[in-house]
Amino acid sequence: MLKSNKWILATKFEGEPKHSNFKLEEEDLPALKEGEFICDAVYLSVDPYMRAFDYPVESCIIGEQVARVLESENKDYPVGCLVQMYSGWRSRSFVNAASRKETEEIHLLKVPDLGEREPSLALGILGMPGMTAYFGFLEICQPKAGETVLVNGAAGAVGSAVGQIAKIKGCKVIGFAGSKEKCDWVKSIGFDHVFNYKEQDIDKSLKEAAPDGVDCYFDNVGGNFTSKALQHMKQFGRMSVCGGISVYNASQPVLTPDPFMTILFKQLKVEGFDVMRWETRFPEGKAEMKKWIDEGKIKYRETVEEGFENMPKIFMSLLKGANIGKMIVKA
Amino acid sequence: MLKSNKWILATKFEGEPKHSNFKLEEEDLPALKEGEFICDAVYLSVDPYMRAFDYPVESCIIGEQVARVLESENKDYPVGCLVQMYSGWRSRSFVNAASRKETEEIHLLKVPDLGEREPSLALGILGMPGMTAYFGFLEICQPKAGETVLVNGAAGAVGSAVGQIAKIKGCKVIGFAGSKEKCDWVKSIGFDHVFNYKEQDIDKSLKEAAPDGVDCYFDNVGGNFTSKALQHMKQFGRMSVCGGISVYNASQPVLTPDPFMTILFKQLKVEGFDVMRWETRFPEGKAEMKKWIDEGKIKYRETVEEGFENMPKIFMSLLKGANIGKMIVKA
Repeated sequence: MLKSNKWILATKFEGEPKHSNFKLEEEDLPALKEGEFICDAVYLSVDPYMRAFDYPVESCIIGEQVARVLESENKDYPVGCLVQMYSGWRSRSFVNAASRKETEEIHLLKVPDLGEREPSLALGILGMPGMTAYFGFLEICQPKAGETVLVNGAAGAVGSAVGQIAKIKGCKVIGFAGSKEKCDWVKSIGFDHVFNYKEQDIDKSLKEAAPDGVDCYFDNVGGNFTSKALQHMKQFGRMSVCGGISVYNASQPVLTPDPFMTILFKQLKVEGFDVMRWETRFPEGKAEMKKWIDEGKIKYRETVEEGFENMPKIFMSLLKGANIGKMIVKA
Repeated sequence: MLKSNKWILATKFEGEPKHSNFKLEEEDLPALKEGEFICDAVYLSVDPYMRAFDYPVESCIIGEQVARVLESENKDYPVGCLVQMYSGWRSRSFVNAASRKETEEIHLLKVPDLGEREPSLALGILGMPGMTAYFGFLEICQPKAGETVLVNGAAGAVGSAVGQIAKIKGCKVIGFAGSKEKCDWVKSIGFDHVFNYKEQDIDKSLKEAAPDGVDCYFDNVGGNFTSKALQHMKQFGRMSVCGGISVYNASQPVLTPDPFMTILFKQLKVEGFDVMRWETRFPEGKAEMKKWIDEGKIKYRETVEEGFENMPKIFMSLLKGANIGKMIVKA
């Protein structure tokens, strides 16, 4: 009988995640029946949203992975085939690919042939974060050539892609990131203005880089950054609310200056989204992103850390900004 | 030489408006040249937005009025003709109707023939507040039959119209107002659920009236009401930010629980607006509202107070909720 390891939520997150929030457990995998297969994690994704979602104690931590089929009773998923799916923080997954319900729940896909590129891209620029940037920016912000776009978390998997998509669309792009190394990279991939929010005043920076104001604001950070950014929006500005990494760890509700009068007087359009609303359009988004990568118009980076056993530690470092580009765990 | 009286902003508003913020001044009106006319205020509008806008000390308080032409050198606006325009808190206005710029700035219109109805309706249900309800609700909330709509300030000029439009569109409508008399009237014009926010708990009321949540939220109030209302929104809910009468008087920035994580996780769409963005479509909106009034589908009320000299007092009473329906000053 094959066994798997999984990381479960031992206790609910409160404030910053701690080692005591996580517990490693072993589970037995059943013998395979028709339509089923078992696969080994190759790359696992860690993403900020894992902190923000509320799910029950004792459940496996959520997340997507790329895995290689180890045993199979499903001819569509032969041994050796690479798949991607939301099976959680598991070293080995049992999949009933004959069950439509299960495949929809875990969003099972075959990893497309990426040629010389690593299949981990299916978790990053050609996966959920890439689609988050593509649809979350284009659909909600509706950027027009010549407009000014503001992105924070600009060195992250999503932010770095948003800024480059905005450049492709003819916009002026302002990014904020949290270290010199990050800012240097963000600048190197074509952002027009890049600021280190830990060292530079947000208001002053925005006044300098966007004296006429910001048309589109793609927010990964929330909190204080957003309160300031709103003051720099133009009339009819659009804000895409993608994340709030600065407030995910708050154990108390965060108090913030009331934004609604600014939304009113500037006639802003603000929308939050979960990228899965566009899931049926992912093939279109992935094809476009792949084309831009092949043309050299979109660059990406990954921060790859090793060891399934280190997942909590790697995840905690992600929340502290240890990544440049997509953070990946190599199992 | 004809003279006029005007109310000017003597000192900037700080907190609740006080008598000392206002000063009555006399002004001389010039002799008429070709294309010009002078008219006497008949009805003046007082609206909450007058508190919210920031304009220079010594300028005439902004606002729309219905006026009757007294002297004219413009054959399109003969003596006796009724016009409406944003000429401010003036007892008598000088209009250069030959100047395209001025007519656009004051949004000069002839008051349409309303038959037996008072021309004050051009300042209310068939004017700016009616258009605010019509476009601000329909365009931003995009309500669908069967959805649940929440409106506060429900006994006001705008809120009472929003709720009735929502009923026409087949929605369930929940209103909040601030007195028994107001709630009784709101109930009588067809709202499904009406609560007195001064006596009833907002959370409990919403849980009871919208156990499955709110699809569309039309906000005239802001502040604490909005913080609570957001917690009752459904996934993909829409919020039209029309006003914030509960926070207009704040002299310090109001701190509020950060709404952006709610906007994110519920995938809400939030938009602020100034109704003038739809000005070119007002004829369509007015025709539709007129039809609904004639069909008995939309009811309205006015609170008419007398005396140009009482405008500050009447305006201050409006901000304290003294009106049911549109507050009008009869000159």
